[in-house]
Amino acid sequence: MAITIWLTGLPGSGKSTLARNVCARLLATGQRYWVLDGDELRKGLCADLGFSRSDRRENVRRVAETCKLLNEAGVGAVAALISPFTTDRELAKDIIGRNSFLEVWVATPLHVCEQRDPKGLYQRARQGSIPEFTGVSSPYEPPPSPSLVVHPHLASVEECVDEALALILGFEWRACNMV
Amino acid sequence: MAITIWLTGLPGSGKSTLARNVCARLLATGQRYWVLDGDELRKGLCADLGFSRSDRRENVRRVAETCKLLNEAGVGAVAALISPFTTDRELAKDIIGRNSFLEVWVATPLHVCEQRDPKGLYQRARQGSIPEFTGVSSPYEPPPSPSLVVHPHLASVEECVDEALALILGFEWRACNMV
Repeated sequence: MAITIWLTGLPGSGKSTLARNVCARLLATGQRYWVLDGDELRKGLCADLGFSRSDRRENVRRVAETCKLLNEAGVGAVAALISPFTTDRELAKDIIGRNSFLEVWVATPLHVCEQRDPKGLYQRARQGSIPEFTGVSSPYEPPPSPSLVVHPHLASVEECVDEALALILGFEWRACNMV
Repeated sequence: MAITIWLTGLPGSGKSTLARNVCARLLATGQRYWVLDGDELRKGLCADLGFSRSDRRENVRRVAETCKLLNEAGVGAVAALISPFTTDRELAKDIIGRNSFLEVWVATPLHVCEQRDPKGLYQRARQGSIPEFTGVSSPYEPPPSPSLVVHPHLASVEECVDEALALILGFEWRACNMV
C-alpha cells in the first residue's frame, strides 16, 4: 500500500532537502516514491494560485488530491509544503486517508530559518516586498499531534532522514500486518 | 520512459471503457500505467470547476499537469477526457511534452453517442437541464491530426484496444531506440 509523507514547516526549514533525501533512501529500498515539492508545484499544477487564505487552502487541496492519485497508482508521495494551517492539513489527511498519511513537522525555529534564508525571501518579506509571507506576515500553526517532529537545526540531515525512515517503515509494516 | 495516452471524444463515446481496457492490457505487459478519468477527477482534483470555456481549459491544464507528474514518477497515464477544444489539447501536449504524448480520438459519431446515452445526459441536455453540454450546446472540435482514430461504433472494444496497443508499444519502442 502506497502512502503519503507530508512534511510541513516554515519557509527555509529544510523540508525539500529532507523530502529529497527521504525519497532517495526509500527508492534505494526498492520502493516507488516521488517528491511533490510545493515550490515546484506552484510553477505547474498550482501556478494560478497566490498566497491568500483561500488560495493556500486550494493549494493544499490540489496537492493532497495528487498525492492520493499517486498512492492509488502505487507510488508513495513525499510532499514538502509549508501548509501553515492546521485545518488545511486536516483536509489533506481526509483526502488522502488517515491510514495512508504521515505528518512530519520540520520544526526548525523561525530565527534559524530567517538566519539561513537560502532564497533571500525572509529579507524581502521583512522589507515588505513579499506580502503574506509565512512566519513574517502570515501565521504558521504548528501541528498539534504530528506523526514525527524533526529538528534539522539540532541534528544532521542524515539523522532526520533516519528518524523519518524508521517512522515510515514501521508504519508500512503495521499496515501490512494490520496491527 | 513513461508516456501519456490522451483519449478525447464526445460524452458517451466510450473513452473510459477504452481507457480501462488499454490500461489493463498495459499492466498485463508488466508496465506501470494508471487511468485518469475526467468524470472521476471532477469529483476530486477538479471538483471546483464547471463547464465554462475557461473552466474547461483549466480542467485540461490540471489533468495534463497530473499526467506529467505521473510520467515523471515512472507511471504511464491513460487520460480519458472530453477535452473538446483543439487549443486546450495543444496545451496538454505542451505541458506533458510532445515526445511523451499520444492523442487518440475516440470518434463515435454524435448520433450513436446520443442513442446510447449511458448516463441519460444527452436526454437531459436536449431538455435544457444541462447547459454547455458538449455535442448539444457546446462544440466538439475533432483533432486535426491525432496519433490514432478509433471507431467503437464500427469495431469491438477489443479491436480498438489492439489498435491503441500497437500504437503505444510502437511509440515506446521508437522512443527507447531513439529512431
